[in-house]
Amino acid sequence: MIIPKILKGFRDYLPQTMIPKKTIINKFENIFKKFGFSPIDTPALEYTEILLGKGGGETDKQIYRFNDHGGRDISLRFDLTVPLARFVAQNYDELVFPFKAYHIAPVWRGENTQKGRYREFYQCDFDILGVESPDADLEILLIIKSGLEELNAGEFRININNRKILNALLNKYNLIEKNNEILRIIDKIYKIGYTNILNEFTQNLKIDKTKSIELLNLLNINESTQKYEILNDEIFIYIEKIKKILGEESNDIINELEYIFKSLKKLNLLSYFALNPAITRGLDYYTGIVFESYILDRINFGSICSGGRYDNLSSLYTKNVIKGVGACFGLDRIISLMEDKNLLDKKSSETDLLILNLESNISTECQVLAEELRRNNIKTEIYLEKKKIQNQFKFAEKKSIEYLLFAGKDEFNCKKYNLKKLSTGEEKKGLTIEEIIKYIVENKKK
Amino acid sequence: MIIPKILKGFRDYLPQTMIPKKTIINKFENIFKKFGFSPIDTPALEYTEILLGKGGGETDKQIYRFNDHGGRDISLRFDLTVPLARFVAQNYDELVFPFKAYHIAPVWRGENTQKGRYREFYQCDFDILGVESPDADLEILLIIKSGLEELNAGEFRININNRKILNALLNKYNLIEKNNEILRIIDKIYKIGYTNILNEFTQNLKIDKTKSIELLNLLNINESTQKYEILNDEIFIYIEKIKKILGEESNDIINELEYIFKSLKKLNLLSYFALNPAITRGLDYYTGIVFESYILDRINFGSICSGGRYDNLSSLYTKNVIKGVGACFGLDRIISLMEDKNLLDKKSSETDLLILNLESNISTECQVLAEELRRNNIKTEIYLEKKKIQNQFKFAEKKSIEYLLFAGKDEFNCKKYNLKKLSTGEEKKGLTIEEIIKYIVENKKK
Repeated sequence: MIIPKILKGFRDYLPQTMIPKKTIINKFENIFKKFGFSPIDTPALEYTEILLGKGGGETDKQIYRFNDHGGRDISLRFDLTVPLARFVAQNYDELVFPFKAYHIAPVWRGENTQKGRYREFYQCDFDILGVESPDADLEILLIIKSGLEELNAGEFRININNRKILNALLNKYNLIEKNNEILRIIDKIYKIGYTNILNEFTQNLKIDKTKSIELLNLLNINESTQKYEILNDEIFIYIEKIKKILGEESNDIINELEYIFKSLKKLNLLSYFALNPAITRGLDYYTGIVFESYILDRINFGSICSGGRYDNLSSLYTKNVIKGVGACFGLDRIISLMEDKNLLDKKSSETDLLILNLESNISTECQVLAEELRRNNIKTEIYLEKKKIQNQFKFAEKKSIEYLLFAGKDEFNCKKYNLKKLSTGEEKKGLTIEEIIKYIVENKKK
Repeated sequence: MIIPKILKGFRDYLPQTMIPKKTIINKFENIFKKFGFSPIDTPALEYTEILLGKGGGETDKQIYRFNDHGGRDISLRFDLTVPLARFVAQNYDELVFPFKAYHIAPVWRGENTQKGRYREFYQCDFDILGVESPDADLEILLIIKSGLEELNAGEFRININNRKILNALLNKYNLIEKNNEILRIIDKIYKIGYTNILNEFTQNLKIDKTKSIELLNLLNINESTQKYEILNDEIFIYIEKIKKILGEESNDIINELEYIFKSLKKLNLLSYFALNPAITRGLDYYTGIVFESYILDRINFGSICSGGRYDNLSSLYTKNVIKGVGACFGLDRIISLMEDKNLLDKKSSETDLLILNLESNISTECQVLAEELRRNNIKTEIYLEKKKIQNQFKFAEKKSIEYLLFAGKDEFNCKKYNLKKLSTGEEKKGLTIEEIIKYIVENKKK
């Protein structure tokens, strides 16, 4: 015998976790569709060369990489953005631009496992390709807002920043050649806090302390700020301040960010958003706006939807310049968070009604009855084994099935059946199938 | 630059293929749910030992197998049945039996590619575990029938056989020790035809020619039979004949098959089914009823839904005996077949309405309008770039978007807009948003 086990960092989805996962995916998909996004899919396996590109980063070590039977160097995708870049380059002529697409699929990373982190996890990407206008950025933000609202996981805030502003500031301070190191340090702000950031600036990067404090202060990072978010009308005051510091030649850059916040204000949605100059999205491919999103009472779970604008998504694979903006819902993180908040409806079944197995030889009658119920959108299960009625009750309870239908030979003969509502214990006797359907459909509406 | 390419045997799903694929998956899922089945999922990667079990078969050569960073011998799943067996053994105590589950997910096989065959493809399994009664077999058959009906891909027939009958016949003919070889040969009937089958019986297996002809004839395999199917009331005549040949001690076996067909007749569904004694499902793990399904004018595409009953699914991984019955829709084969019959609605978008971009600075007004439409389930896209109106028209045509909404500053001021229906060219002027919603919702119902 082989001991049944799964790999560390992987997991089975039992119905009680799979049902809420599918519910969440459905919510997101409905939003994507309503905004005119179309689904796409790419292979789980790709040439390693395609996935790693120039490579050399953290992902190289985490990737599941091997040779196939033909000796090809192949790997499992570790995100959905690189495959999208390849997809768009390869299928360029067949796609209709502006191209709005979503992609919900698993990715694999052999990283160290920890609570809530898996080696196989789902991403849920959505992108607008071929649009330079900040209206595309705005639309992505509106989708994030709709998605988080639909989740109903608590108050949330979408943090926005623009990489270009940090770049302009670094330019101003003659620090642009330390751009990457600075990005990497600021990115750790939530983990290590202000004092450590300042230390790294002065000690590791040898930046003058006054200059460091000044720069960090401009990024709203100082000893007294919490969460580094700028809210409501403070946003416009901050923008004005930065405008003055950067001078007129940076107006275009600032205007981009200002346009977004002004639009959000006009749409009466500003309270869902914040300007957070500390957000950089690490060393990702983003070149303009970047964003992260948090459930306010679960900030420790990290961002559950992040993304940004990239000036040239597919530059590695094609000469066609493909500008775009996109984001990604972290599906597994969202599920962990909702589990933590006890917000997942952990039913192991969606069945509405169970037809009890009262005697043998009436199985086809039960199926006919079930068909009638199913045709009326009542999810109907038949208990297929002849077992004690207590066992069948227990089964219905364990699966949280709301209605029990009692039908034996007599009932089938006179076409009147008994119905029991499990949550209340209420019983109704001698109902026709039409009456049963009407009763359940009305109850479901409530 | 890296040339964008994908691995042989793999493919991208563009919206025009992904949309119909999702539509088909949705149809199947709705049916599973209506029958009270719950979704599950398992990891794509498993220990090779788990997947190969005793191993030694064809799949060993086709499996994507490698060592992970921890030196573990792991593989990508090549079907969903082996993972289900492991899943049920491992989670036995947490599952509620009878356990009705469905699993829709990709599997990987490094087999030789040919038209319509891919190395990554989706399976769509559904199983009833923990039920011995043939009523579970019947239910699986009813689901297959509902699924194929819902597909609307043409007239279909579900072929049924029972392994036990073949075994009993081989016993009768003292050929049971050649069971495996005989199964393997009969399984090729559709490929090589009667004469070759007979040859293999007499020459390779050294079975006496008269005996071979007699046995094959009992399996409805002879020179004149086509498709080897037995239809309608002929089924019961055939069953009676086999009953007589096998004698009373085989009554239980025959009764099982007879029960299924009698039930189907009672349910008035017999015309969708056939008894086909030539169906064996190769050397699979099946032990009782087996079935395959065909679209009648595309038999060359092979079975698009197959399955059967297994007496002990998880015997490799647990001492708990788990009997069950299940089947699998071959999603990719179904898509290829429907593509071949020109039945796929190859739209590259599901968007209902496009708000044209007539002038700048009205983007937030457009988003407010769009929100109103989306709230009423009208899938609404905004053309986000300022481009010539002809380009925007072309975009709508390419994406088969039915409605165009014209809204400039004046329209927003008086809150009346112009609407154009692309398929008819019909234009409506000066409509309020409520009128637009009403008009589109009514048109969608038609």
